[in-house]
Amino acid sequence: MSGTTAIIGSGLIGRAWAIAFARANWRVRLWDPAEEAAPAAQGIIADLLEDLAANDMLRGQKVEEVLARISAAPTLAEALEGTDWIQENAPEKLEVKRALWQEMEPLAPAQAVLASSTSAIVPSLFTEELASRGRCLTVHPINPPYLVPAVELVPAPWTSGETMQKAESVMRAIGQAPIVMRKEIDGFVMNRLQGALLEEAFRLVADGVCSAEDVDIGIRDGLALRWSFMGPFETIDLNAPTGVRDYAERYQGLYENLFASMQRRVDWTGPVMEEVEAERRQRLPADALAERQRWRDRRLMALLRHKAKAAREIS
Amino acid sequence: MSGTTAIIGSGLIGRAWAIAFARANWRVRLWDPAEEAAPAAQGIIADLLEDLAANDMLRGQKVEEVLARISAAPTLAEALEGTDWIQENAPEKLEVKRALWQEMEPLAPAQAVLASSTSAIVPSLFTEELASRGRCLTVHPINPPYLVPAVELVPAPWTSGETMQKAESVMRAIGQAPIVMRKEIDGFVMNRLQGALLEEAFRLVADGVCSAEDVDIGIRDGLALRWSFMGPFETIDLNAPTGVRDYAERYQGLYENLFASMQRRVDWTGPVMEEVEAERRQRLPADALAERQRWRDRRLMALLRHKAKAAREIS
Repeated sequence: MSGTTAIIGSGLIGRAWAIAFARANWRVRLWDPAEEAAPAAQGIIADLLEDLAANDMLRGQKVEEVLARISAAPTLAEALEGTDWIQENAPEKLEVKRALWQEMEPLAPAQAVLASSTSAIVPSLFTEELASRGRCLTVHPINPPYLVPAVELVPAPWTSGETMQKAESVMRAIGQAPIVMRKEIDGFVMNRLQGALLEEAFRLVADGVCSAEDVDIGIRDGLALRWSFMGPFETIDLNAPTGVRDYAERYQGLYENLFASMQRRVDWTGPVMEEVEAERRQRLPADALAERQRWRDRRLMALLRHKAKAAREIS
Repeated sequence: MSGTTAIIGSGLIGRAWAIAFARANWRVRLWDPAEEAAPAAQGIIADLLEDLAANDMLRGQKVEEVLARISAAPTLAEALEGTDWIQENAPEKLEVKRALWQEMEPLAPAQAVLASSTSAIVPSLFTEELASRGRCLTVHPINPPYLVPAVELVPAPWTSGETMQKAESVMRAIGQAPIVMRKEIDGFVMNRLQGALLEEAFRLVADGVCSAEDVDIGIRDGLALRWSFMGPFETIDLNAPTGVRDYAERYQGLYENLFASMQRRVDWTGPVMEEVEAERRQRLPADALAERQRWRDRRLMALLRHKAKAAREIS
């Protein structure tokens, strides 16, 4: 399956979506309210594609082939014309989204799904008054979607089942791993899971139990090893002789004792941040952050190649 | 650094520790109160070592070399004689631990550190009355420690700084990644982090937001990719332009809105388990659990080889 997608807003996330779609043989039209932004984005995308090609992440295609599928549209109307998918990447301000969606929706062709990349706003808040609100949803990536497969499909109460099915098919077709939510909720799925873990991590450091680095060891050299290829439910399903119920019956009592002490909020920007920041800056000086981000992306690409190979070879 | 270790209790965890120490050139004495258990454990260990050798996890050594370092001791006194490290792996029952530690401690040579593998009992509860309680602590692995590097070093209030330093050195010497806790707390570090994440995962399924598989996608194809080589603190440190404080200032507001709805407990063995179990058994029938556990171990070994290679090659 392929088609034409309009990427509305050509910042960091819009450019990443453009790559994800174009790599999967979709035609991509970039539009941005700032006149020079979309043409400039094409240059940045070209550089990113060189990097991906060098890391064997273009599925055997040449940079020019992928780049040729991406064009800049001069107007919103021209961007949307004949599209099958519209991915909006405007700033995380409700009024901006509302105005933009009111402008987009009447221009969008009847067959198009309209998706927002928002991480912070549930879709009902900017789609309620739209005539064709049944084809609107949030499709939230972990940036960048051309590297990280998971994306959240978040329906408003009026998003149709047909729209959800089409969104799931399109996301699978471009190589993402869709989380098909049954209703909207603040934080969606991934930020809720991440928030629960981070809150306990900050509390452990705030309470003087261990350092931030100790938390990182516990995850990167401990829990996240299995999580990175199975997730937490399959992990516990395999951690008791007869499966997940057996696990819950054996160990819930152990965890139950912990929850009372997990209720108190910790201000992440309060005193605990003095310690966390001092520790991080000692391990990684501020002027080394950008280089470390490039290291992270190289490690991430290597991990994804490893996972693809392991999935083929280990059964 | 190497020496002699006594492994007290030759069940699943005791055998795994025996491999971790012996592979790192330590002499290992196995003792178990059940007379035939320790000699039988040697046979099981031999099979495990064959598996590890086939997966290139013996650091270039032959099975026989590693196996030759492991012997069964006929009595507790003979097991402890001349040891530098004692690792206790008794059942998770406080009275059993108390009685065993009272028997072990007077027999342990002056230079030996005494460590418990317990995941459920803080060390103060079974070491308080011991004459040399300053050299006692909990060293809790994620099983099996010969594959998963992270181990928690949990001090009782009276565990000496010298003991903690020696424990850290010994664990590093055998190739573990020690989490050096500053005080004891129920759940230690890793089960607290895992508990916080699992509780939110069960709540999302219980509230009809998504399926258990969707949670697994969000972790294995999303969050745990970076966590598996950086941990959560380094991940957020690299996710805002000027680092971790910048991240907390930008995004805490987003997370704060979620915490109120994360307070309500969910009974993991209640109605939500009907759904989770049905879903898991549909994906993986009960009679395929054992084979999937072997798949998990092969994937884990492959991931660890990948991480070692990536750490060497990607800087």
